[in-house]
Amino acid sequence: MQQISFQAPYLIFLGSETNPTYAKTGAGIVQWQPERCLGQFNLPGGTVDLGLPQLSIAEAAAKGAKSLVIGTAVIGGAIPESWVEVLEQAAGLGMDIVAGVHTRLSDIPSLAQTALEAGVKLIDVRVPPKNLPVGTGKKRPGLRLLTVGTDCALGKKYTALAITKEAQDRGMKATFRASGQTGIMISGAGIPIDAVVADFVSGAAEVLSPDNDADHWDVIEGQGALHHPGYGAVSMGLLIGSQPDAFVVCTEAGREVVSGWPDFPLPSIDEVIERTVTIGKRTNPGIRAIGISVNTSKLSQEEAVAYLSSLESQHGLPATDPIRFGATKIVDAMESFS
Amino acid sequence: MQQISFQAPYLIFLGSETNPTYAKTGAGIVQWQPERCLGQFNLPGGTVDLGLPQLSIAEAAAKGAKSLVIGTAVIGGAIPESWVEVLEQAAGLGMDIVAGVHTRLSDIPSLAQTALEAGVKLIDVRVPPKNLPVGTGKKRPGLRLLTVGTDCALGKKYTALAITKEAQDRGMKATFRASGQTGIMISGAGIPIDAVVADFVSGAAEVLSPDNDADHWDVIEGQGALHHPGYGAVSMGLLIGSQPDAFVVCTEAGREVVSGWPDFPLPSIDEVIERTVTIGKRTNPGIRAIGISVNTSKLSQEEAVAYLSSLESQHGLPATDPIRFGATKIVDAMESFS
Repeated sequence: MQQISFQAPYLIFLGSETNPTYAKTGAGIVQWQPERCLGQFNLPGGTVDLGLPQLSIAEAAAKGAKSLVIGTAVIGGAIPESWVEVLEQAAGLGMDIVAGVHTRLSDIPSLAQTALEAGVKLIDVRVPPKNLPVGTGKKRPGLRLLTVGTDCALGKKYTALAITKEAQDRGMKATFRASGQTGIMISGAGIPIDAVVADFVSGAAEVLSPDNDADHWDVIEGQGALHHPGYGAVSMGLLIGSQPDAFVVCTEAGREVVSGWPDFPLPSIDEVIERTVTIGKRTNPGIRAIGISVNTSKLSQEEAVAYLSSLESQHGLPATDPIRFGATKIVDAMESFS
Repeated sequence: MQQISFQAPYLIFLGSETNPTYAKTGAGIVQWQPERCLGQFNLPGGTVDLGLPQLSIAEAAAKGAKSLVIGTAVIGGAIPESWVEVLEQAAGLGMDIVAGVHTRLSDIPSLAQTALEAGVKLIDVRVPPKNLPVGTGKKRPGLRLLTVGTDCALGKKYTALAITKEAQDRGMKATFRASGQTGIMISGAGIPIDAVVADFVSGAAEVLSPDNDADHWDVIEGQGALHHPGYGAVSMGLLIGSQPDAFVVCTEAGREVVSGWPDFPLPSIDEVIERTVTIGKRTNPGIRAIGISVNTSKLSQEEAVAYLSSLESQHGLPATDPIRFGATKIVDAMESFS
């Protein structure tokens, strides 16, 4: 009952990508975990630059790279033939290979064979660990914060990362807990909760944030939304198993319907708070909202300030856009949490 | 995007079982679907009698059996070596093989080979169909009833089966929709919802109860309980995707804590109704409770009558124990539903 995890330092593999948009995973790793990154490697024609030293596979191995991490998306999700040789070279030189693409690394026979011979691991961050338990509901020591949402794809991962970094910068004990593939790639550990069989979702969430020091915060990346017509079950299991003491509601200014489900209006922040508390108190009676995180990218700076201020008055909670204004206010609330 | 389904008539295979308790699946099939059962087959030493004609594999094949259904549980969940020869004989004579045991039938190489050569299917009712979709939340034509619970294992399947039979006996259009392995074995179709990956649970529930006539009832077997600390996510996804018009709350008289989770008090019937409506109205604004189904096995007949009567007064809903008193009252509520 272990999480997925992989070892730093990394060589980040960028294929022959020329569009930085498709290298978001690699860029995220460099943004949030620069100390884990040793270098980058492009194939001929590739132009994406993450600002890391350019290293060949052999150079990276000589400098002690422990993992080759695939930092780009690929059209269709499959691994191009031209990559396999590179991955095999890295595996042969002792690096684990880490990917979040659709093809399973172990389904490439020659790569699987090379990895076996070299004694390295092929780590697919989309594949949950085996033998996950059913949730116990038992209260675990340590403090937990979960980012929840009015919808998918509006900043739950970013919010959790920003909170964790701010807390760590202040010297607080805090760990980001990744529940999705990109978060796992960025942090080097986690469980892809949405890929877990339904019976074991809350158990997986328990494994994701295990027993810890009484003053340690697990900052857990939320998934989906309780009100989501497609993914509500994922959010439910993650909430029950995370048993958060505190949660932050993430939303996007101007989003009015569930993205991709236009018949479903976005729930209000109050509705999300009420439902999260109602369900979450089953495994943590003390659960409460401590902040609001808003993606204000559709607003001007001035509008954003006014909007956040109005949310603070309305809900009596600190509200921020962590990209624009940082996570200070929310981490203040964590510091004074009791 | 199909449900699991298999063809009647069946030969029910009982191995060398001597204890009727371990042949509950076979007994359930005979109880609820006698018209689908052609005969039974025991191995030497087996004494369980479901009251069906004793047929050899060859006799069953000659009489047109389409499926051999394994009607007993086995210790450890694995298929004994002594069974494989029998299963291969049946497969060789054109029968599909249906099982709900832990070992996958297709993982027995000689059986897989025989099935391939004979052009028959190996159907594992624990394995969900491939390529299930994400839930759309779109309202589907037809009426739907879901049995929900205060806990696991207190009669949600039985209640749904009893309601379906009573409705069909009255000439109403009604179909039992199985969401668990035993229900699938009994009814010959369904999806094991708890084995579906979390992202696709509500989508699986949509596939389970597809578009139907406006006056047709799908009577959907519930799973778990929204208040369950281990299985809440399963119940959530099933509720969202089933989009029931009506639900029946199932409970057990005298059960005070969640079975196996002694730190968790059983929710009240009112709490279950409130939470089911709160969550369910997202995909069906008209959702409402229409009855209460109680397992009164711990009460005397007199106590049961008094208890059900008190529940009816308290909740303003018909209450019955379908094993003792049938599902009449609940089907009355369905007939007058509008």
